[in-house]
Amino acid sequence: MTAIKVGLVGIGAQMKENLLPSLLQMPDVRIIAACDTDRARVTEIHRFVPGIPVKDSVVDLLKDIHVDALVMAGPPQMHREAALLAMQRGVAAFVEKPPCSTLAELEELVDVANRHGVVTGVGMNFKFAKPIRQLREMTTSREFGDTLFVQINHYANKPRTPLWGLDSSLRSFLLAQAIHTIDLAVTFGRGELIDVRPRVQRHSDGLIVNGDLTFSSGVTASLLSGTTFPYFEFQMKVVSSTSTMVELDNLWNMTVHEPEHGTNVTGVAKRWRGTWQPGPLDSGYERSGYYGELLAFFDAVRARGCFEADYASLLPTYRVIEAICQEETESAFEGLSLRSQSRSEHTAIAL
Amino acid sequence: MTAIKVGLVGIGAQMKENLLPSLLQMPDVRIIAACDTDRARVTEIHRFVPGIPVKDSVVDLLKDIHVDALVMAGPPQMHREAALLAMQRGVAAFVEKPPCSTLAELEELVDVANRHGVVTGVGMNFKFAKPIRQLREMTTSREFGDTLFVQINHYANKPRTPLWGLDSSLRSFLLAQAIHTIDLAVTFGRGELIDVRPRVQRHSDGLIVNGDLTFSSGVTASLLSGTTFPYFEFQMKVVSSTSTMVELDNLWNMTVHEPEHGTNVTGVAKRWRGTWQPGPLDSGYERSGYYGELLAFFDAVRARGCFEADYASLLPTYRVIEAICQEETESAFEGLSLRSQSRSEHTAIAL
Amino acid sequence: MTAIKVGLVGIGAQMKENLLPSLLQMPDVRIIAACDTDRARVTEIHRFVPGIPVKDSVVDLLKDIHVDALVMAGPPQMHREAALLAMQRGVAAFVEKPPCSTLAELEELVDVANRHGVVTGVGMNFKFAKPIRQLREMTTSREFGDTLFVQINHYANKPRTPLWGLDSSLRSFLLAQAIHTIDLAVTFGRGELIDVRPRVQRHSDGLIVNGDLTFSSGVTASLLSGTTFPYFEFQMKVVSSTSTMVELDNLWNMTVHEPEHGTNVTGVAKRWRGTWQPGPLDSGYERSGYYGELLAFFDAVRARGCFEADYASLLPTYRVIEAICQEETESAFEGLSLRSQSRSEHTAIAL
Amino acid sequence: MTAIKVGLVGIGAQMKENLLPSLLQMPDVRIIAACDTDRARVTEIHRFVPGIPVKDSVVDLLKDIHVDALVMAGPPQMHREAALLAMQRGVAAFVEKPPCSTLAELEELVDVANRHGVVTGVGMNFKFAKPIRQLREMTTSREFGDTLFVQINHYANKPRTPLWGLDSSLRSFLLAQAIHTIDLAVTFGRGELIDVRPRVQRHSDGLIVNGDLTFSSGVTASLLSGTTFPYFEFQMKVVSSTSTMVELDNLWNMTVHEPEHGTNVTGVAKRWRGTWQPGPLDSGYERSGYYGELLAFFDAVRARGCFEADYASLLPTYRVIEAICQEETESAFEGLSLRSQSRSEHTAIAL
Repeated sequence: MTAIKVGLVGIGAQMKENLLPSLLQMPDVRIIAACDTDRARVTEIHRFVPGIPVKDSVVDLLKDIHVDALVMAGPPQMHREAALLAMQRGVAAFVEKPPCSTLAELEELVDVANRHGVVTGVGMNFKFAKPIRQLREMTTSREFGDTLFVQINHYANKPRTPLWGLDSSLRSFLLAQAIHTIDLAVTFGRGELIDVRPRVQRHSDGLIVNGDLTFSSGVTASLLSGTTFPYFEFQMKVVSSTSTMVELDNLWNMTVHEPEHGTNVTGVAKRWRGTWQPGPLDSGYERSGYYGELLAFFDAVRARGCFEADYASLLPTYRVIEAICQEETESAFEGLSLRSQSRSEHTAIAL
Repeated sequence: MTAIKVGLVGIGAQMKENLLPSLLQMPDVRIIAACDTDRARVTEIHRFVPGIPVKDSVVDLLKDIHVDALVMAGPPQMHREAALLAMQRGVAAFVEKPPCSTLAELEELVDVANRHGVVTGVGMNFKFAKPIRQLREMTTSREFGDTLFVQINHYANKPRTPLWGLDSSLRSFLLAQAIHTIDLAVTFGRGELIDVRPRVQRHSDGLIVNGDLTFSSGVTASLLSGTTFPYFEFQMKVVSSTSTMVELDNLWNMTVHEPEHGTNVTGVAKRWRGTWQPGPLDSGYERSGYYGELLAFFDAVRARGCFEADYASLLPTYRVIEAICQEETESAFEGLSLRSQSRSEHTAIAL
Repeated sequence: MTAIKVGLVGIGAQMKENLLPSLLQMPDVRIIAACDTDRARVTEIHRFVPGIPVKDSVVDLLKDIHVDALVMAGPPQMHREAALLAMQRGVAAFVEKPPCSTLAELEELVDVANRHGVVTGVGMNFKFAKPIRQLREMTTSREFGDTLFVQINHYANKPRTPLWGLDSSLRSFLLAQAIHTIDLAVTFGRGELIDVRPRVQRHSDGLIVNGDLTFSSGVTASLLSGTTFPYFEFQMKVVSSTSTMVELDNLWNMTVHEPEHGTNVTGVAKRWRGTWQPGPLDSGYERSGYYGELLAFFDAVRARGCFEADYASLLPTYRVIEAICQEETESAFEGLSLRSQSRSEHTAIAL
Repeated sequence: MTAIKVGLVGIGAQMKENLLPSLLQMPDVRIIAACDTDRARVTEIHRFVPGIPVKDSVVDLLKDIHVDALVMAGPPQMHREAALLAMQRGVAAFVEKPPCSTLAELEELVDVANRHGVVTGVGMNFKFAKPIRQLREMTTSREFGDTLFVQINHYANKPRTPLWGLDSSLRSFLLAQAIHTIDLAVTFGRGELIDVRPRVQRHSDGLIVNGDLTFSSGVTASLLSGTTFPYFEFQMKVVSSTSTMVELDNLWNMTVHEPEHGTNVTGVAKRWRGTWQPGPLDSGYERSGYYGELLAFFDAVRARGCFEADYASLLPTYRVIEAICQEETESAFEGLSLRSQSRSEHTAIAL
């Protein structure tokens, strides 16, 4: 198999902790160049891949070196600008989330991708996390029945202030954190997103965002997230028409509650459930999805096919993000006297 | 202390499994009579309290025997009728939930109770369950800060058909099961209930009911319940302005997630949390609340005071129940073509 | 069914918290008298059972009142003396653990019981705890195979000083706490106890006692207990010839690990296990065994049969207790220079 | 920092799944050659490190290419032979466990290492697993007090037949699996190992091995392992003189039970404990120890210092392995009529 030639853009924490290790252990992928505006950071790459050319701009990298794909990790503005440059040269463009700041920008990226016929990707690692893949498989099995309800609790404690030069900490939070939650709701909701009912609470510099998404499939997804939590944790439940409920706790433990369960020594009996834990030595980047997302992206690059987490896949997610931002803006106009509940009266947001 | 003289009404499963054992082990309470339309059932009481008079109607019991209080467990019609008879004679009236079938009936019960000045009570045992009491204490501590958000998941698998001669399985479910969930939301929400946004999903004979309640205190409570689950389980989370989150799992385990936690041997460190489990021999009826509710009720009877779970305390809960039933009725008129999301457009239900 | 007439002896904490509530809710059992050397304590019984005669000595109680059985909770000396008095009058004698302080005393009790043909019982509530009963049923099923190994961890934090006038805190601990652990090992070990290998560690006033018991059935039981733990907890594991391992955690949660397990939605798959939790409202005294032990004892009294936890059933347990005490005594003679490991060289203690 | 030049020996599953990925993401380490007797396997390396020379024997590799260290993963005979070749040329030698089959062989390896002054290492990844490092830090803190007791349960389901041409499935199991358990006991036991009391049970082709190790520090370690379990799991507890108990469950969850614990909202209260879980996205090879062991090994190579898991560090572990094997051999001579308990009478094995 011919190796894919990759250029790295943005050699910061996310690149070094998650993307680079995944790339280094991936077969038939060659890191052949790197670029960062910070000279000290970009030369760090030589501790892992000696001798490759390093650049201080994406323009130079693309001009001087032939790469099949760029893998980028930085702020959304950089993602957007660099992705546009790459796509215009026919180079596949994988960016960390978020790919950009607004729905309009995303639509532009999708449009350019379509026009140039390049493979694109966003680092939606939750979607590719091994237990989420298992969950997707389980919940699409015949035995599970039809998904009726999805509950996702995604606890975060940041960002408490606006990121990336944005003026809204709500938008920053949605782009940095809730993008995963919403994307998972869209993934498990299936069908078209037809209704969003968000509710935003602010207390000091912290946010609590919750609400329901409804899909044409009949699935309702109830989301809880925000920055007023003590630390990052993640829990997900899916309930089906066969009265089966699958739980995922923190990408580690799964529980299947089903009306009839038991063991060989008990036979089917009340209150028994099936639980799963990873083995003690579970290692690597498959559990967290960093390996899986890049592997699938490069498969698409090789096949000139479609990557599941391409830019277009995020359109419903950005529509929800815009709906939530819009809802808070409108509430603000109504004045404090109406209190928080009034924020939510604009529920039938056109999608 | 003078013992309280109690008459039992309805010697079925709930009486025998939970109320009677709690009463038998309660100091200064005497069961002096019992009544049930079924002769075989009522004489069962003699295995526990030998020699007491047994009756086949509440009318006879109240006529022939002086009791301080009736403790009743049966269908809501019986609760309502027997409670009215008792109150009119100045007898304190404790009924299992639900006390009656509609808000209008509850308002009548409250009205009669007020006119006769009797102590009333409903078996809202969750509210008196020991870990819920602990949770209430914890969440009202200064260190916890202001409650911002409450999430309650109450999984049930019945009733799948209407109970007690009602024509709605939704109302039956709300009265039999969700009454606890809603009552807890009201309890932890504090202040006046100012908004209800319910969503009802039906699949075959099963229900999923979810939605948000908003309180004048600023608290939002998000509830998930229904009958499409494999078995009964209960989970609750409360999030505060100090970024503390308290979890209660099935009335057994508590977890406090707080931004700063640790142990003597670690010091404060990331991802440590405090968890609590009952001791291995935790016994009796305090954990489940059956003992506590009756103890507090009899204290009120002795003090001629107010019992926390009196009929009036359930008014907001019944308003929510009516709102949910009304929402489904209206949705039904709109026809199937509008799909499920349209059911929820009537959100600002006047309470 | 004729009710059994019961006299209570020793109205202290254990009686009031566990035995009395269990008796009060048990059908066809009448508490007809009580006795305690402390007048204030004994009259407490009238808050629960009004009007019954109360005495300040067992002698008086037995002389004046005809009882079918005594239920006693006090120090072992009282248990022994009162049980002897009761048995000599043909009265069934149930005592809290420990029934007496030494193997020699227990042998005397067994001897007297045999001569008088009375039903005897000891409050080995663990053995009757509902999850332990479930475990016993599971581990004797054909599917489980042969039990090979049992591990019991029983954490305690007291007694740190000698109890009941004994001069040994080790013996006090064994009689007050480890008696349960050893009795469970004997129960699950099955067959004759043929080897004991104890090890005693002392640190300040705390103990750690561990070691293996071997049974003629081929089962080995490995025990860990002591008073150097932070609080009381209990864990048990049973491993079988079919590579099935059953775990019980704190009398609440059970887990069955088996080579082949799965759910309807996963099919048999690696690392799935069956777990069980009590329902949220699990109440009463069946879980902790206080109800079950008394129910079975009274069944034996009615049937003039044998109660599983009679005095004789504890003979192997007391042999282990004596072996552990003897081992420490011998180690003490050997002097400190030989250090702790030398304590354990006398392993083939004759049983 | 000058990069270390590494040659790989044995490109099988363990190398590809754990060692190679760890090496690829390690800074300042260069894989410059590989060797395997199987041509197809060795050329696999080119999918990750293109263009490096590959060999079919260690002799050729060492002859043709200057490497600073060999990293080897194969059967113990290969480890031993290749390590001897490497050490004789002054090349640092890291081997997967087990480094060899017997204590005598290990003593030879240690002797050669000492004579040539080379850095050696064994892949004792448990010892370097991140939560074990945390445990070591916690249990050596002043607040923890003195370690008194260690319990390690290491469940395995293989090997059921002899490995690597050995004639004993017991020795195979000890070298393949229990080597970790014993090494951890030695690590946490501290001081000199002064007593071993093993017990071996066989049922069909499965083993249960348990027993106590005693150390000059006063620590007792109680081990349970074997191949009669359904699947691989790992649990560890450490108890101290301050009545603190630290638990590690499967390298994922930690719990600290301490006499005084609580949260900000409860204050110190009974039955609260501190628990820790990894974050949802915990990734890489640090948790399982594969990264840490190699990082520390290369640090030692750079510093020409001592690596904690060098060959000599395993001497006490191999003494325990020999003691267990010897115990079973002796038992076999005694005949079946003496039953299993007799196997354990030879307890004071000279170490």
